[in-house]
Amino acid sequence: MKNIIIASTSTVHGSGYLEYIMKELDTFFSTAQTILFIPYARPGSISHDEYTATAKKAFSQINKTVRGVHEFENPIEAIKHADAIFVGGGNTFVLTSQLYKNNLIEAIRTAVINGTPYLGTSAGSNICGLTIRTTNDMPIVYPPSFNALALVPFNLNPHYLDPDSNSKHMGETRETRIKEFHGFNPQPVVGLREGSWLHVQEDAIILRGNLTARIFKKDQKPYEIAPGSNLNDLK
Amino acid sequence: MKNIIIASTSTVHGSGYLEYIMKELDTFFSTAQTILFIPYARPGSISHDEYTATAKKAFSQINKTVRGVHEFENPIEAIKHADAIFVGGGNTFVLTSQLYKNNLIEAIRTAVINGTPYLGTSAGSNICGLTIRTTNDMPIVYPPSFNALALVPFNLNPHYLDPDSNSKHMGETRETRIKEFHGFNPQPVVGLREGSWLHVQEDAIILRGNLTARIFKKDQKPYEIAPGSNLNDLK
Repeated sequence: MKNIIIASTSTVHGSGYLEYIMKELDTFFSTAQTILFIPYARPGSISHDEYTATAKKAFSQINKTVRGVHEFENPIEAIKHADAIFVGGGNTFVLTSQLYKNNLIEAIRTAVINGTPYLGTSAGSNICGLTIRTTNDMPIVYPPSFNALALVPFNLNPHYLDPDSNSKHMGETRETRIKEFHGFNPQPVVGLREGSWLHVQEDAIILRGNLTARIFKKDQKPYEIAPGSNLNDLK
Repeated sequence: MKNIIIASTSTVHGSGYLEYIMKELDTFFSTAQTILFIPYARPGSISHDEYTATAKKAFSQINKTVRGVHEFENPIEAIKHADAIFVGGGNTFVLTSQLYKNNLIEAIRTAVINGTPYLGTSAGSNICGLTIRTTNDMPIVYPPSFNALALVPFNLNPHYLDPDSNSKHMGETRETRIKEFHGFNPQPVVGLREGSWLHVQEDAIILRGNLTARIFKKDQKPYEIAPGSNLNDLK
């Protein structure tokens, strides 16, 4: 049974790494002794070791062992045998490129469909959608494809940001960008604000956290959904 | 002789389309009767005809005729014979995809190197750099390459935005994103604020407008340059 947390962010303002969601993760990872961490997104271009150390420290609070996928000689086998998977945030293009390079897209998808718990934050959440075409990140490397894990039948926009009505900046708002996405792509997009996450349990996709999320469908007016809403019909 | 204007934006807050730079463009396009407009970036997913109508209206103020490249049966020939070229803003991924699809990358590059005046705004400025890897746009389509026109030996970041020290949003600042770019790419990046442009005349690359620009080099502290500065040594 699919069991996935798709979180907007690892960190909310004024709080530590994963702190806002750690109680939830204690339950979510209850069957896992060791979490396989995928540090490929490299926020701030830090090394895989440095990034893994951050995850190790955070999960030691709930007595979990963390191992970086880069520590294994065969990353595909590491995915196959993982108790649980955590894909951290950073740059979605760097993450996606590295997943393709190591042939992990299919391996992760298969493991998660077969029930391995998966936590994604930010870039690690972007890749849960059909494509990474709604990431906010800068395209600093060129991946072989924008196709992603397709664990849910829509796209994600983590760190969703409402338009600032006082801004004098002429760059596009997030809403305008997603509208442009729908000029070229059919699938819905879920705008997840920081502090929100989706909990996918097989066919149920429930919005968690205290905030509403914004749903964008092609040729329709965007709308808000309340925490607790089920997105099982969204596609 | 190369003669290029690389503008951060088509429009500054509270002013009409190209209004802030029209006097400059009157001089810049003095040898051109007709401007060939490339509407491929399609801001807000508007049609090529709609977008070209906007450019036509703006340039009628300085008595220039505008024709969209999509109006020509052979766009490569249209580029070859153009008096001047204007590539408008919108989505850099859509623009780049369409340029590759119509085999225009080499055609535009050759024309501009041979002296056809080129104006780019926003996405049309991004493509003047070595690659589009420092665009702010959402990757709503997958182009065959991120390599761009390489008319200057660095990358551009149009609509450059300073960090907002009051923000509680955890998404990366522009400066952080460009720093991450330098984790994977060697070339400098010019952060052009709205209202600024670079005027390239053969080997001289002068910053114009009233604002400073921000220069980012790999492994160095970013720094500001004043209007009038020459970037001819930047590479």
